[in-house]
Amino acid sequence: MQDKMKKLYEKIEIDAAYSHAMTLLSWDLETQAAKESVEGISKTLSILSKLSYDNYVNEDFKNLLYSIEVDKLDEVEKKIVEKLKKAVFEKMEKIPADEYSEYVKLIAEASSVWERAKNENNYEIFKPYLKKLIDTNKRFITYRGYKEHPYDVLLDDNETELTVSYADTFFKLLKEELGPFILKIKGKKEKELKDIKAKLSKYKFDIEIQKKLNKELAQILGFDFSKGVLAESEHPFTTEFNNKDVRFTTHYYENDVLSGIYSTVHETGHAIYEQQIDDKYNDTHVLSGGTTMGIHEAQSRFYENVIGKHEKFAILIKDLLQKYFGVNDISEKEYILLINEYKTQFIRIEADELTYPMHVLVRYEIEKYIFEDLKREIDLDDLSKMWDDMYEKYLGIRPKDYVNGILQDSHWSGGLFGYFPSYALGSAYASQMYEAMSKKFDVAQMIEQRNFAKINEFLKEYIHKYGSFKTPKELIKIFSGEDFNPQYYINYLKDKFTKIYLSEE
Amino acid sequence: MQDKMKKLYEKIEIDAAYSHAMTLLSWDLETQAAKESVEGISKTLSILSKLSYDNYVNEDFKNLLYSIEVDKLDEVEKKIVEKLKKAVFEKMEKIPADEYSEYVKLIAEASSVWERAKNENNYEIFKPYLKKLIDTNKRFITYRGYKEHPYDVLLDDNETELTVSYADTFFKLLKEELGPFILKIKGKKEKELKDIKAKLSKYKFDIEIQKKLNKELAQILGFDFSKGVLAESEHPFTTEFNNKDVRFTTHYYENDVLSGIYSTVHETGHAIYEQQIDDKYNDTHVLSGGTTMGIHEAQSRFYENVIGKHEKFAILIKDLLQKYFGVNDISEKEYILLINEYKTQFIRIEADELTYPMHVLVRYEIEKYIFEDLKREIDLDDLSKMWDDMYEKYLGIRPKDYVNGILQDSHWSGGLFGYFPSYALGSAYASQMYEAMSKKFDVAQMIEQRNFAKINEFLKEYIHKYGSFKTPKELIKIFSGEDFNPQYYINYLKDKFTKIYLSEE
Repeated sequence: MQDKMKKLYEKIEIDAAYSHAMTLLSWDLETQAAKESVEGISKTLSILSKLSYDNYVNEDFKNLLYSIEVDKLDEVEKKIVEKLKKAVFEKMEKIPADEYSEYVKLIAEASSVWERAKNENNYEIFKPYLKKLIDTNKRFITYRGYKEHPYDVLLDDNETELTVSYADTFFKLLKEELGPFILKIKGKKEKELKDIKAKLSKYKFDIEIQKKLNKELAQILGFDFSKGVLAESEHPFTTEFNNKDVRFTTHYYENDVLSGIYSTVHETGHAIYEQQIDDKYNDTHVLSGGTTMGIHEAQSRFYENVIGKHEKFAILIKDLLQKYFGVNDISEKEYILLINEYKTQFIRIEADELTYPMHVLVRYEIEKYIFEDLKREIDLDDLSKMWDDMYEKYLGIRPKDYVNGILQDSHWSGGLFGYFPSYALGSAYASQMYEAMSKKFDVAQMIEQRNFAKINEFLKEYIHKYGSFKTPKELIKIFSGEDFNPQYYINYLKDKFTKIYLSEE
Repeated sequence: MQDKMKKLYEKIEIDAAYSHAMTLLSWDLETQAAKESVEGISKTLSILSKLSYDNYVNEDFKNLLYSIEVDKLDEVEKKIVEKLKKAVFEKMEKIPADEYSEYVKLIAEASSVWERAKNENNYEIFKPYLKKLIDTNKRFITYRGYKEHPYDVLLDDNETELTVSYADTFFKLLKEELGPFILKIKGKKEKELKDIKAKLSKYKFDIEIQKKLNKELAQILGFDFSKGVLAESEHPFTTEFNNKDVRFTTHYYENDVLSGIYSTVHETGHAIYEQQIDDKYNDTHVLSGGTTMGIHEAQSRFYENVIGKHEKFAILIKDLLQKYFGVNDISEKEYILLINEYKTQFIRIEADELTYPMHVLVRYEIEKYIFEDLKREIDLDDLSKMWDDMYEKYLGIRPKDYVNGILQDSHWSGGLFGYFPSYALGSAYASQMYEAMSKKFDVAQMIEQRNFAKINEFLKEYIHKYGSFKTPKELIKIFSGEDFNPQYYINYLKDKFTKIYLSEE
C-alpha cells in the first residue's frame, strides 16, 4: 500500500512541476512578456499541457490509482485519490485526446476572434466560434454523462455539487426580492455623487505613487510580501504556485484611483486565502489551492465589498488618499457614498455591489437555456435578444449594441461555461461569512481599528486552512453552523443600500 | 529519413519547452520571486531538469540519433545532429545519472555554503565543498576522456575548441606585455579622478529616474523592447527563450549611477546578440542561441568597453546625466577619464578594462594547476596562497582576507570550472571585432552620431545571425578574415590607456 501511494506521489510531483511551470508562463505572459514573445510562450504552454495530460491519462496510472485500497488510507490520502479519479478519469479521460486538443486550439482561436469582435462590435464574426464552442461543450457533456440537468456538469466543474435545482432557488430569490428593490433606488443621490466625483477629479493620481499606496494597502489587509508578489496586468487576477508563492495583479488608471484600489482589495482577498492554506496540503498538490471558484470569489468579494465598502473602511480610504495624494476636501460620509456608488449600466465588471448579481443572473439563465436540451439547435440571435430583454427587465436598461451586450465577457470565448454563477454565489457566501463572523466579534470595530489580523484569523480557522479538502457546502456548515442561506445576502444588500440611499436625514 | 528527422524534432521541441520553463523559473527567481518561494521554485526546477534529462538520455533516442544518415542531411540538420551527439552522448550520458544528480545537489548546497563563507570570510567551511567539487569534476573528466590536457574538457565546454595550449599563448602575452604596462600606470591621475567623483557625488540619483535613463539607453543602443524585457536583479544577467523573447537585468545603486549604466550597456550587448540571431534557427533550438561563452562575452564587452568607454561615448553619458539628473559641471574630457578609471583592487567584477584580464589570468592559472594532474591531491590552502601571490605579482597588491581573495567569485561553488578564460578571450575578440569594423567604416563617427544601427548591422552580418551554427574560430575568420590575434587586444589597451593616462598635454 505504502508503495502505491509513493508511486502516486511521484506522479503528483510531476504534475505539480508542470502546473507550476505553466502557471508561471501564463503569469509572465500577462504581467511582463513583450508583445512579440506571445507565440513562443503559447507554443511552450501547449507542449507542456500535452506532457501533463500524458502524465495522468494512461492505463498504467489508471491501474495504479484504481488498485489503491482506499479503506486503508488516512482521510487526506483518501481525498487525494477521490479527487484524482474525478478530475482525470471521470473528466479528462472521457473526452477523446484528439477532440480535447482540437478544443484547446478552438479556444485559442475563439479568444482572439472574440477580442476582434468586441473591438469592432461585430457579433457575426464571433458567431461561428460561439456555435462550435457550444456544440463541443454539449458533446463533452454527453461523453461525461449527467444525472438531472446537463448544465449540472458544467456548474459542478466550477462549484462542486452545484446543480440547476440548487442554483434556481438562489437566482429566483435574487429576481424576486432584489429586482424590485434595485429599481427603487434608480436615480437617487445622483447630484451628490456627481459633486464628490468632481472634487476628486481635481487631483492627479500619478501611477508610481498609486503603486506605493496599493502595496501599503495590501500589507495592511494582511498580504505577506515574503510569500508573494503584486504586479500589474490589463485584467487583475490572482494565481499561486503554493502557499508560499502567491501572485496577484492590479491595474492602475491615472484618472481613476479607486479602480486600482478596489482591484487590489478584491485580489488581496483571493491572495490571503491562498497564503493561509495549511502547509500540510503543500505536497498533495491536489488539495493545496482554494477549493472552488465560488468559495474563492467569496473571499475576494468579502474583502472588496463587505469589508472594503463598509462604512468604517471609508476612513482608511480617506486616510490613504490624503496621505499619498493630499486629498483633503472629501468627508468620510462622502466617501461612504462614493465607494457605494449605485450605477445601472451595461457592463458587468463595472457594476456596483447591488446590481452585480443581476448581471450574473442574465448569464445564468442564458447558459441554462443553452444546455438544457443537448439536441436543440441554438439560434445565436435569440441568445442576444434574450440578453437584451433581461437587461431591460432586471435593470431597466436595454443595450444598444453587442459590445454592451452579449459580446462583453471573455468567458465563453475561453470555453468557460458554468463559471458565472459562482460570482454571485461568492457574494452570497460572503454575506453569510459576515453574519457568522459578527457572532464572534464586532467586525465594524475591527475594520475601524484596522485589525485585519483578527478577521483573517477567523477566515483561516473556518475556511482558508482547509485548502481543497472541504466542499463549499461543508465549509459553509463549518463557518456558520448552518446550510447556505441566501436570505442573508438579500438582507445585507437591502439594509446597506436602504441606509445609504433611502433613509432621510 | 524525413521521418527520423521529424521524430528528432519532436524530441527537440520537448527539450525546448523544458528549457523555456526552467529558464523562466530561474529568471523569476532572480528578478521578482518572494523570499520564501525559493524552495518551491528549486523543487520544480529539479523535477523538470530530471524530466529533461530523461527526454534525451535513453537508448531509444540514442538509436534514433545514431541511425540518422548524416550524409543525406542539409548543413543545418547535420549541425543539429552533431551538436546533440556531443552534448548528450559524449557528455551527459558518460556521467552516471545518480552521480550527476548527486552533483546537482552538491552545487545547490555548495552555493549556499559559499555565500555564507563569503559573508563570514570563512574559507574553512567552504573547503570541504570545494574539495568535493574539484574531485567530482576530475572524476567526470575521467569518464568523458581527454586528448592532451584534462583541463581541455572544461575549457571546451565553455568555449568550443579552446585548449590549454591555445589559451597559454594568449595568457602568456597578457602576462608579458600587459603586466608591466599596468604597473606603469599605477597612481596616475588619482587627484583628477577624485575631484570628478566629488563633483558627481553631489547629485542624487533616484532609482525610478535611473530606470527611465537605462531604458532609453538600451533603446538607443538598439535593444528592441517589443522582443524582450529589462528588469532588475542583484547580479545583472541576460537570458533568452528565443530571438523574440530576450530578457536582461541591471542593478541600480542610488550612489553610483555609472554602475547601473555600465551593467545595462554590458547586458544590452548580450541581448542584441540574441535578438539578431536568424529566425531560421528558432525551431532547431540547438542552434538558436549565442554560440559560446567567449563569443557572448565578446558582444557584451564590445558594448561595455570598446563602445561604452570610447571617448565619443562620453558625450552620450554626459547628455543622459544632464537630461535625467541635471549634472552640468563635468566636462566631456572628465567623463572620458571617469569612465576609464584605472583601479588596482582585489575584486574582479569591479575591475577596469585594463586590469580585468589579469584577474582572469590568476583564475586560469589556478584552474590549470588543479586539473593538470587528475590524481594529484590538491591542498586548498596552497590554492589560496597561489591566488594571493599572483595578485601581488600581476597587480602589485596582496589580499588581506579570503573575501578579497579566493572566496570572491561564485563560479566554483556553482560547478563552473573552465568558465573564467572566456571573459578575457571575449575582451580580446572584441578588440579584433573593432579592428575589423574599422576597416568598413569610421566607428568613432558612428558612436558620435549615435548610429548604433550601423554597428549592429555589422555585428548581425558577421556574427549574430549565425546563432550557434559556427564555432568561435569560424566566426573570427568570418568577421576579420584572419585567425584570432590577441595582439590587437594588447595594442588597443596600451594605446587607449597611454592616451588617457600617460600623454602630457
